[in-house]
Amino acid sequence: MRVAIQGEFGCFSHEATGKMLPRAIVVPCARSAEGFDRVDSGSVQAAVIPIENSLAGSVAEHFDLLLARDVFIHGELHLRIRHNLIAPPGVALKQVCRIFSHPIALDQCRNFFRSRPDIQAVPFYDTAGSVRHVVSEGLRDAAAIAPKQAAKQYGGRVLLAGIEDDRQNYTRFLLINKSHKIGTGSNKTSIAFALKNVPGVLFKALSVFALRDISLSKIESRPLRGHPWEYVFFVDLLRGDDEAARSALRHLGEIAEFVKVLGIYPAAKPVESRSEP
Amino acid sequence: MRVAIQGEFGCFSHEATGKMLPRAIVVPCARSAEGFDRVDSGSVQAAVIPIENSLAGSVAEHFDLLLARDVFIHGELHLRIRHNLIAPPGVALKQVCRIFSHPIALDQCRNFFRSRPDIQAVPFYDTAGSVRHVVSEGLRDAAAIAPKQAAKQYGGRVLLAGIEDDRQNYTRFLLINKSHKIGTGSNKTSIAFALKNVPGVLFKALSVFALRDISLSKIESRPLRGHPWEYVFFVDLLRGDDEAARSALRHLGEIAEFVKVLGIYPAAKPVESRSEP
Repeated sequence: MRVAIQGEFGCFSHEATGKMLPRAIVVPCARSAEGFDRVDSGSVQAAVIPIENSLAGSVAEHFDLLLARDVFIHGELHLRIRHNLIAPPGVALKQVCRIFSHPIALDQCRNFFRSRPDIQAVPFYDTAGSVRHVVSEGLRDAAAIAPKQAAKQYGGRVLLAGIEDDRQNYTRFLLINKSHKIGTGSNKTSIAFALKNVPGVLFKALSVFALRDISLSKIESRPLRGHPWEYVFFVDLLRGDDEAARSALRHLGEIAEFVKVLGIYPAAKPVESRSEP
Repeated sequence: MRVAIQGEFGCFSHEATGKMLPRAIVVPCARSAEGFDRVDSGSVQAAVIPIENSLAGSVAEHFDLLLARDVFIHGELHLRIRHNLIAPPGVALKQVCRIFSHPIALDQCRNFFRSRPDIQAVPFYDTAGSVRHVVSEGLRDAAAIAPKQAAKQYGGRVLLAGIEDDRQNYTRFLLINKSHKIGTGSNKTSIAFALKNVPGVLFKALSVFALRDISLSKIESRPLRGHPWEYVFFVDLLRGDDEAARSALRHLGEIAEFVKVLGIYPAAKPVESRSEP
């Protein structure tokens, strides 16, 4: 099974795919839209995409793509994000003067940099790519911050593991493909809907769930593309394809401009085991 | 008046500050938290921060900082984002083989790159910084994508203006300072609140506004730091400090774990004039 990810081999999406589909052949894509294109054309059977991080928030582009494209969510995973200091082989920590990584990763390791004021943080376009860079260039004074998987991928060596400031750092990944068939054990539904801009309309929209005792696990408003400052709402319901959920969505259809079911799938355990090494 | 921005001279925050406070002395900060620190310590009188972009979505870190810090919103601005191709003086378009910019800016100019497949997009940490880079290094085969202001700032030359794919590209900026005094003409209120995770509680929370015919212009859920997958809600009300709004917030206080008023300020016009050159 071929699965598209956005990013290079060794990135967090690669790690997430390994956990969700251990035998998948990963197809790296430079851009997220390319992953969706590949699902659409059938050149891959699925894609794994990050949708939100517990510290950095939502991946806006992926919400937009879920709305725009004919794909369906079939699963989710919460991946603990661990940042590691990775150097070319033979480079010791005391030689490191510069550390390359994606700005968000650098930012999530502020305590590390504070404790080593002589080390310079250098923004780079990608975490895994920064490991490839320091290793392939054979830099002797540099290291990178990236997932452990990137060290394996590019022949780097982990100098320090888990240097992130906040261990409550999780990213939620979604598994998407073209099939709209609902899998067994599906107990969560992701939807998107747009509302006319009139007072109280969101209250009315949410009433369709509240009146049926359906819990929401997430609500997010996103600007509607091409309509500045009009919003589309992304909501997750803690319900699968049952009678109450179907009635609520029918009811929502009477209130909303449009409703799109983005997927019905088994909910992930809230977080991965805290005792993970 | 000294005003902190995150980013370098010539960035979009610099441009927004010029429109909100034409006579301000801009103090660039490497990190957003530094801008908030400077407001707090009094080394600047205010800060101007981007809070959401109509295409890229919310700036999650700034929502978190508004929640965590003792600052107050006093104004907002919607800035049309225009990307320009800027080269060192004397470099013509036909010489350009590489274009540096922030990944989001590169991504928002895809049509341009599609029409010139021989030109390579090179991710850089900052838009304005990429202009400084190509000019100060005197590169003869390179240009940068950045606000017009960056050309003026670093002595670059605009080769092409407005190369963004989507003209419906706006960023909303907030003006913050330490004073909690409410200015005249304030007709918009930004709040944050957290809810216990029980079914229907968001519906109940929104009822305090719906029952009083108070319109919301935005709702956003953000993970609560340190509590993975628990959410804090950021809501904008189209009301100033009037009796109905005060009653609604009192009422919300009975339902929510906490309520914080982030600011009460005059609403910006929805978008800048479309006829802007």
